[in-house]
Amino acid sequence: MALSPEQIAEIEALRCAPSETLRPSVAALEAILFKPFPALDHGFVRVIDYMGDDSAIVQAARVSYGRGTKKVHEDKGLIRYLMRHRHSTPFEMCEIKFHIKLPVFIARQWIRHRTANVNEYSARYSILDREFYIPAPDQLAQQSKVNRQGRGEVLPPDQAAKVLDILREDAQRCYAHYEEMLDPDGLNVARELARMNLTLNTYTQWYWKIDLNNLMHFLSLRVDAHAQYEIRAYAEVMMEILKAWVPKTAEAFKDYRVGAYMFSASMLSVLRRQLQGEAVTVENSGLSKREWQEMQDALQGG
Amino acid sequence: MALSPEQIAEIEALRCAPSETLRPSVAALEAILFKPFPALDHGFVRVIDYMGDDSAIVQAARVSYGRGTKKVHEDKGLIRYLMRHRHSTPFEMCEIKFHIKLPVFIARQWIRHRTANVNEYSARYSILDREFYIPAPDQLAQQSKVNRQGRGEVLPPDQAAKVLDILREDAQRCYAHYEEMLDPDGLNVARELARMNLTLNTYTQWYWKIDLNNLMHFLSLRVDAHAQYEIRAYAEVMMEILKAWVPKTAEAFKDYRVGAYMFSASMLSVLRRQLQGEAVTVENSGLSKREWQEMQDALQGG
Amino acid sequence: MALSPEQIAEIEALRCAPSETLRPSVAALEAILFKPFPALDHGFVRVIDYMGDDSAIVQAARVSYGRGTKKVHEDKGLIRYLMRHRHSTPFEMCEIKFHIKLPVFIARQWIRHRTANVNEYSARYSILDREFYIPAPDQLAQQSKVNRQGRGEVLPPDQAAKVLDILREDAQRCYAHYEEMLDPDGLNVARELARMNLTLNTYTQWYWKIDLNNLMHFLSLRVDAHAQYEIRAYAEVMMEILKAWVPKTAEAFKDYRVGAYMFSASMLSVLRRQLQGEAVTVENSGLSKREWQEMQDALQGG
Amino acid sequence: MALSPEQIAEIEALRCAPSETLRPSVAALEAILFKPFPALDHGFVRVIDYMGDDSAIVQAARVSYGRGTKKVHEDKGLIRYLMRHRHSTPFEMCEIKFHIKLPVFIARQWIRHRTANVNEYSARYSILDREFYIPAPDQLAQQSKVNRQGRGEVLPPDQAAKVLDILREDAQRCYAHYEEMLDPDGLNVARELARMNLTLNTYTQWYWKIDLNNLMHFLSLRVDAHAQYEIRAYAEVMMEILKAWVPKTAEAFKDYRVGAYMFSASMLSVLRRQLQGEAVTVENSGLSKREWQEMQDALQGG
Repeated sequence: MALSPEQIAEIEALRCAPSETLRPSVAALEAILFKPFPALDHGFVRVIDYMGDDSAIVQAARVSYGRGTKKVHEDKGLIRYLMRHRHSTPFEMCEIKFHIKLPVFIARQWIRHRTANVNEYSARYSILDREFYIPAPDQLAQQSKVNRQGRGEVLPPDQAAKVLDILREDAQRCYAHYEEMLDPDGLNVARELARMNLTLNTYTQWYWKIDLNNLMHFLSLRVDAHAQYEIRAYAEVMMEILKAWVPKTAEAFKDYRVGAYMFSASMLSVLRRQLQGEAVTVENSGLSKREWQEMQDALQGG
Repeated sequence: MALSPEQIAEIEALRCAPSETLRPSVAALEAILFKPFPALDHGFVRVIDYMGDDSAIVQAARVSYGRGTKKVHEDKGLIRYLMRHRHSTPFEMCEIKFHIKLPVFIARQWIRHRTANVNEYSARYSILDREFYIPAPDQLAQQSKVNRQGRGEVLPPDQAAKVLDILREDAQRCYAHYEEMLDPDGLNVARELARMNLTLNTYTQWYWKIDLNNLMHFLSLRVDAHAQYEIRAYAEVMMEILKAWVPKTAEAFKDYRVGAYMFSASMLSVLRRQLQGEAVTVENSGLSKREWQEMQDALQGG
Repeated sequence: MALSPEQIAEIEALRCAPSETLRPSVAALEAILFKPFPALDHGFVRVIDYMGDDSAIVQAARVSYGRGTKKVHEDKGLIRYLMRHRHSTPFEMCEIKFHIKLPVFIARQWIRHRTANVNEYSARYSILDREFYIPAPDQLAQQSKVNRQGRGEVLPPDQAAKVLDILREDAQRCYAHYEEMLDPDGLNVARELARMNLTLNTYTQWYWKIDLNNLMHFLSLRVDAHAQYEIRAYAEVMMEILKAWVPKTAEAFKDYRVGAYMFSASMLSVLRRQLQGEAVTVENSGLSKREWQEMQDALQGG
Repeated sequence: MALSPEQIAEIEALRCAPSETLRPSVAALEAILFKPFPALDHGFVRVIDYMGDDSAIVQAARVSYGRGTKKVHEDKGLIRYLMRHRHSTPFEMCEIKFHIKLPVFIARQWIRHRTANVNEYSARYSILDREFYIPAPDQLAQQSKVNRQGRGEVLPPDQAAKVLDILREDAQRCYAHYEEMLDPDGLNVARELARMNLTLNTYTQWYWKIDLNNLMHFLSLRVDAHAQYEIRAYAEVMMEILKAWVPKTAEAFKDYRVGAYMFSASMLSVLRRQLQGEAVTVENSGLSKREWQEMQDALQGG
């Protein structure tokens, strides 16, 4: 993660200038505000601003449900209840803003989540840095044999070395040509054109602002074992940030979303038979092989 | 505006408990945080939380446009530039949360703006207060003759008195029956059913959270002279809050949105002829009567 | 359901004017296009237009996943796979447009789903019909003792009669006053004001257009046993329409959403113990009483 | 534009299989349904499906405004009125679905419009074609001197040739390495990794579905002279499709959006002085130099 001395100084300056506020504040999040957490070889995630805390969720729920709620539920219980019953609007009352540096091919996957606000560094307007994502050797994997969109075995060292050479050299050559095209005393090509020569592992950066409900939806998809490693690396950093920000919500989220499994109507009827002592097999389950396997994984996992 | 002593005490307590934050704070908004501003006879608007300030917009724009921006633009100039060229994403980086009390028929109009987060008081779950909107006599107007969805002349005093009597009595009778139906020792009707007997001027309340870009879109439609008075009353309070929160943005908004007028291609060609000294009339303008009138209003207004 | 002779004639005319199209068409949906299906006492749901079918979902998935998909999956299997793994974007490729007549208090609940396009009859501009929702006696229930937002026992006949009298008389009186206020030769009050005197069971109507993914989200919440009966009545009509429109999707939806249950991480660990023969009780389950009960209901239900 | 013989045959087959529908159909759009319109060197836009027509907009507006509307407005006049007064919801009642092939760096710009549904070809799952965008020589321009995100002079032929060589060779070398990495009998790298070696001018494709209101917002930004040429090329094709689909709306859109200009409050006051015969100059206008220039351009343009 390459922060310029200028950026480090700016962060230090921001961290030395507290002000007073009447808004809810979260000490554990203030402690890490503006600080970059590394992800991949040059990427990072840092929190730039936030609104609300666990109590703001409770407060919003109580506006909806009125006076009676207070007696019935403690905060933690109410948050668990809201999460379990998929009451999404109270969680929308919290908002967080990140500054993220990430490779372009991951940014393309990420932006498919349309429910966030984004300001990305513009390569029409400015010049991208000479930084590319080059995977660590233990992340260089073969195409999976069972999953068309997944990874299988790690590459043998000599093959890995060969791949890394390709990635490094192509990225560098393309970037050198990008610079050559941009040279104001040379070809002086418009930035909006020259950028098309860059490879997809070039780093970009953006501000990304999202409400807590949509953040959890993003995280539930992206911390999943089926998510691509390179986006999961970011999601895992953000899970830690979630715990610092809204610890009660993060705990309920882990129980009811991340570690949960949705049993279909057919799976529920298999379960019922099993709990009554029947030895159900894939053949007499009424499930497809794939569903059966997924159900077994859910029951054995954890 | 009827706040209960309990609520007033709660607000006082919140206003006495500042904490330290590294986030951007806005002194002028902190000064009014949690305080209710009256709207209509029993309604209010109060700010519950906020994220960002004028500088956060500039900062987001500079992430997009990179290093070069700083030299070119001062903050104020950059904000005006963004507003003029309809660059919406930097304004999305700010967020504000309101607590609003408003009549149901206005809530129905308001919620057509779908880009906000809402937690409304639930009449399935809780009991609504005995509070109805009864217009001030100078707001009791006849149906407009020229505008199918507008108001014309103010009602003569005796007719106004009659209307007020109707509104007051019907609302009170319906509410009394609502209470009678809810009585746990009497009919004990389910809340989700009993509520259907209330009139549309009954007050409800909600938390309403929105980003600055969408807030300005809402305000540009709802401070407009064609907006219904009862929603404009809220929009005008929120315009004042906007000035306290993001003064540079509020100023640019006033110039480029609220006080602005969009000339169509046909109107532009009329303008060109007029500026060359031609005496264009509605007949030779190529505009419809209505368009011509709107254009004249825009040119004479202000 | 009161359709005017004019409206019936218009529907007949539309149904007699087929045209040729190259777009995918669904015979079972064409057979009911424009026809109103009753809901509650005066409400209805009718399909006005649609885009796409089961094949359009498959086609979109195959754009995403490329050539290889065709061999691997049959259409039905692919749709089940997409549903099970919560791949939402292929379902967004289908769209449907409804014309719905419904009581205002249900419209208020309905519109909280913000992901649809809505054009509602405007009571600022036009005059609402004299139609109110009056529940059938077997739907007139007491407040639930266990669920703060639910219904309990049906009201005894004499009490039900009393409630129906209240609802009917208040709605009629308020409507009569509405008409009196609107009378152009009398008080001539502006429509945007007079409407506030109506009760919340007055019928309104709207066009409501939504993509299939968001429609299923709406239906999963609103066909649920915890949804208010009055909105469930509409959702159930729409479930039948779903079956006519996209039968394969509707079947997968029933299995993986409507009849499914999400087991939390804690519940999964209880399940594992049970399947290994342990007699888990609420006390040693680690679940709250409420969660335990919900889990038992899911296991016994169906 | 390279369609495979297979794809051409598929389109032909679809175009030979009309069915009957009661839905509104648009003959001019049926005539081009499924047909690809070229954009850039290998890209295309084709319409896959649509919902609604000019009449559907009018019909939705009439649901909102009720019976009275019919007499007051003819269809064309009503559409112009809705457009002029920014009534967006009736236009949301129409929907269109495109299949688009475009370079990755343009896809990244395009997807910032978040209000559409997208299914993109997945390079995690499948293998991208060997197709790159190489600009035509007359589109190879220098960096603009006045606009940090624009183009200036066209490059001299020898420099253009050099740039084209760079773009072509880098794209080809990177793609050859991509294939080498993917080779199942060779390095056999996972697709989700290998793709990062491709250059940003590689073509991708997607299904893109959007309502008419948001489509017009997209087009108003992307047919603008300040939009990058490579996305404008697509927007211009889509403008032609708009005319075939909803001709009345397209005409109003051209008058009130594409050819229109928003005068700020300050500009309006300059206009007033000019129309009264005053010779206003940039110095005494109260406008910045840039605003003055933009206003003059608007008044002289067309």
